[in-house]
Amino acid sequence: MNARRLKHWGWGYEDQAPSKEELRQAAAGIRERLGFGGEIEEAVPLDAVEIRASRLKAPGSLGDLFTDDKYERVSRALGKAYRDVVRGFRGEFENPPDLIALPKDESEIETVLAWCEAEGAAVIPFGGGTSVVGGVEGRLGERPFVSLDLRRLDRVLEVDASSLAARIQAGATGPGLDDQLREHGLTLRHFPQSFEYATLGGWIATRAGGHFATLYTHIDDLVESVRAITPRGTWESRRLPGSGAGPSPDRALIGSEGILGTIAEAWVRVRPRPEFKVSCGVEFDDFLAAAGAVREISQSGLHPANCRLLDALEAGTTGAGSGEKSLLVLGFESPHHPVDAPMETALAIAREHGGVPGEVRGNKPTGGDADASAVETWRNAFLFAPYLRDTFVACGVLSDTFETAITWDRFEDFHASAMDAVRAKVAEVCNAPAEGPGAPRVSCRFTHVYPDGPAPYFTVMAPAVRGGEVEQWDEIKAAASEAVIEGGGTITHHHAVGRDHRPWYDRQRPAPFAAALRAAKAELDPSGILNPGVLIDP
Amino acid sequence: MNARRLKHWGWGYEDQAPSKEELRQAAAGIRERLGFGGEIEEAVPLDAVEIRASRLKAPGSLGDLFTDDKYERVSRALGKAYRDVVRGFRGEFENPPDLIALPKDESEIETVLAWCEAEGAAVIPFGGGTSVVGGVEGRLGERPFVSLDLRRLDRVLEVDASSLAARIQAGATGPGLDDQLREHGLTLRHFPQSFEYATLGGWIATRAGGHFATLYTHIDDLVESVRAITPRGTWESRRLPGSGAGPSPDRALIGSEGILGTIAEAWVRVRPRPEFKVSCGVEFDDFLAAAGAVREISQSGLHPANCRLLDALEAGTTGAGSGEKSLLVLGFESPHHPVDAPMETALAIAREHGGVPGEVRGNKPTGGDADASAVETWRNAFLFAPYLRDTFVACGVLSDTFETAITWDRFEDFHASAMDAVRAKVAEVCNAPAEGPGAPRVSCRFTHVYPDGPAPYFTVMAPAVRGGEVEQWDEIKAAASEAVIEGGGTITHHHAVGRDHRPWYDRQRPAPFAAALRAAKAELDPSGILNPGVLIDP
Repeated sequence: MNARRLKHWGWGYEDQAPSKEELRQAAAGIRERLGFGGEIEEAVPLDAVEIRASRLKAPGSLGDLFTDDKYERVSRALGKAYRDVVRGFRGEFENPPDLIALPKDESEIETVLAWCEAEGAAVIPFGGGTSVVGGVEGRLGERPFVSLDLRRLDRVLEVDASSLAARIQAGATGPGLDDQLREHGLTLRHFPQSFEYATLGGWIATRAGGHFATLYTHIDDLVESVRAITPRGTWESRRLPGSGAGPSPDRALIGSEGILGTIAEAWVRVRPRPEFKVSCGVEFDDFLAAAGAVREISQSGLHPANCRLLDALEAGTTGAGSGEKSLLVLGFESPHHPVDAPMETALAIAREHGGVPGEVRGNKPTGGDADASAVETWRNAFLFAPYLRDTFVACGVLSDTFETAITWDRFEDFHASAMDAVRAKVAEVCNAPAEGPGAPRVSCRFTHVYPDGPAPYFTVMAPAVRGGEVEQWDEIKAAASEAVIEGGGTITHHHAVGRDHRPWYDRQRPAPFAAALRAAKAELDPSGILNPGVLIDP
Repeated sequence: MNARRLKHWGWGYEDQAPSKEELRQAAAGIRERLGFGGEIEEAVPLDAVEIRASRLKAPGSLGDLFTDDKYERVSRALGKAYRDVVRGFRGEFENPPDLIALPKDESEIETVLAWCEAEGAAVIPFGGGTSVVGGVEGRLGERPFVSLDLRRLDRVLEVDASSLAARIQAGATGPGLDDQLREHGLTLRHFPQSFEYATLGGWIATRAGGHFATLYTHIDDLVESVRAITPRGTWESRRLPGSGAGPSPDRALIGSEGILGTIAEAWVRVRPRPEFKVSCGVEFDDFLAAAGAVREISQSGLHPANCRLLDALEAGTTGAGSGEKSLLVLGFESPHHPVDAPMETALAIAREHGGVPGEVRGNKPTGGDADASAVETWRNAFLFAPYLRDTFVACGVLSDTFETAITWDRFEDFHASAMDAVRAKVAEVCNAPAEGPGAPRVSCRFTHVYPDGPAPYFTVMAPAVRGGEVEQWDEIKAAASEAVIEGGGTITHHHAVGRDHRPWYDRQRPAPFAAALRAAKAELDPSGILNPGVLIDP
């Protein structure tokens, strides 16, 4: 179908994979910088991967709706968490989908659901396959399952320039939909780390977090209406700018991770491309003082587009800072008017909390995407991170993240206890020194902030135990999740629940809500075919 | 309990009722202004009201948890729509609650639900009784029912000044909770027309629309977590500034109108009282040109606190304008920094669309609530309107409202067709001239605006057919609702669904969502005691 194929493991396209020599050089650089990471190993090539034979056979009458092609099955078997990438690297695809469904229109989605219901097969929506929470991985024992891939439904169908909204098919990727919107001078301006590969449907199903650090943090805020195919009919809400008519049908689908229906398309709120942008980095000696500045900015009503705080370690690791100071990346943008004044007010707040601002950049009309402000630089580094993870795996560096949100009153204690718990667990399972060269790194940044609290995001890097990476990471992930739930946070601010977060999500959610969700699913999906195991048990 | 009692019909307290002479003068003024309205009639006094004997008897062991006092039953029998006020005025309380439940704590709410389940009685939450959609009225045939009144649960329990959040009991009224927050220098800043009497729990259950014309339009946006009592346990979400963990449990309760559980308390986002406020009225010759200005302002990212557009008729009727020009009331406010600059930008937009701004007022720190800006003046008139409705009923003026939200691309056609449909129906049922003195009035304003569309709010005033007001209004309401649903709007932007909007809500909502909601309710409320008849059929 596409000339260009995604790698069968890890991040990106096959043609983006570094050569062995490039990998060696990267590994040496990583070792020098981090103090750990060994010789590179090589991924098991697709030819050498062995997978179970498909347990399902699609009738020939359905044409090319289904495929059991090996590449397709392997490349849709796992998500993109560290534990997924490691397994893919080692050629461990224990439970690949039996078939891939590639519908071209809604009636073909209906056909897939009906056929799976008749066969007793489960349906796992693939989105862009960028789940880091076990969202696309079948853990269904002997039950056969189909991976539902909407990549053929990738069009912007309608643009309402008056209301700044567009009707977009669920399989459109970030660049795909933004390219189509650009023809109208518009953009969704939703740039999660998954931007290049993930799909609109996946973002809606998982409540993806995006570009804006304040106000419009989640895709939730950009959704005007949703159209989904359920085994019991089409669920389509009206296009409405706001409504008070009962509980929101859209909010019931947003975050439903495919258990209630397959999102086919949505009307989303778009905007003109920003004409005015300013950004500024502000350094702080003390992370908690910087957090105080972020709290005041988030409560000021200034609504910065970017307000991301990196602790000193994270600033150093990513090359955005010296490693001695915390760095606040502030940005304002508007398609309409200059934004110098709110930046000045925000910087005044930062200074009151001990911040030292650098140069304010981009303080004029940008004329499009040509500027290279700190915000854009940061964004490029941010989007490159998942590529780097593949290299980490190859050279024996354990690397993954966890994230949450918590109210300001509890943040300081939470941050201290979560860092302590994870550092201790990492040191234990990695047999690494607690400090100095070769010590594991646990760092924190804020990805989004609210008047009532931040969304802290933690990055862990440590020497991997070759061959034991999955068990090693699972222990760290469990300790991190325990710290998050015990500390009063949410098990996920924008990575979703999937299967990996289930034990902690089950403790977080209100029990009557789980019962209500289970009843709602049983009503719409009586055969339990839709993504069984995420969010709730069948 | 309270020394001061609410009127047994209509709006406000008993001691606020005008004298007969005051009513006569008001009626003469109304007649002069509108060209219709007859001699005043007098309301049936409580003593002369006859109601059915209670079909339920609470066991003495439950103390003062229940009452069958006549005043309590009568005053909780109807909401506050025009059709409710008319019936109350005439002493028609056909289906009063059999008992009023007045729990003092959550365990008493549980007792009420358990006792009603055992008795087969329904439970209708009363909130502040300000429903204009049949939300508090039993239409249950022979089934006995209890009105659940949480007025004893009216405390602000906790204030988190760091996160700007407060834990408040569901029975707290607008002034009650704001008085308690004022001690901390904070405010919820949620001022629906029901502000004086309605409760936090009622606002959450009905998705009330509030003070802010943009951004934080509904109570939905102010809710951090909710605690509700269901027949199958307590539904309590975590306090979180944001989350991506499954569909939002809070959004499932917000707008649920009491069918899933009884909201007992909530953490809500509060804010410091605004120190900086500016407001300005802008006149336009043409309503649609003014709407164009509002569209651009709503898409500008300026986020005005007030952005309410009154058409010429509405501006004239309310005394806010001459009656010749449309009036845009613009306001900006901040607890943090001056807001002159965004006002200037917004006024520049208004001028480009033909608007003529008046004086900008309040362009300095206000030092609290002492200012008398246009915004405050408008607010006072707005809060007085429901009192005036009681006088309208007494002097034979039909008066009520309907409201919706719709995307900008469809607004112009929608506005024309809705106005035409309602004007024609009003003229038909009122036997009134179409134009000139004594003609019915149908006017429009925007209560809230979004980047993708406005929330238009229509007011109807016409000569009432004495004794036939309910039938007269029902015909107009049906025509208006038909126009809203056929035109692509929502049957309610912030008045809720209740029982009056059901036929049109049933057409609006996605069928699979209704099935899911019904299944969720059956799971949590298997005996179907919770507010049967609103939103869905049992």
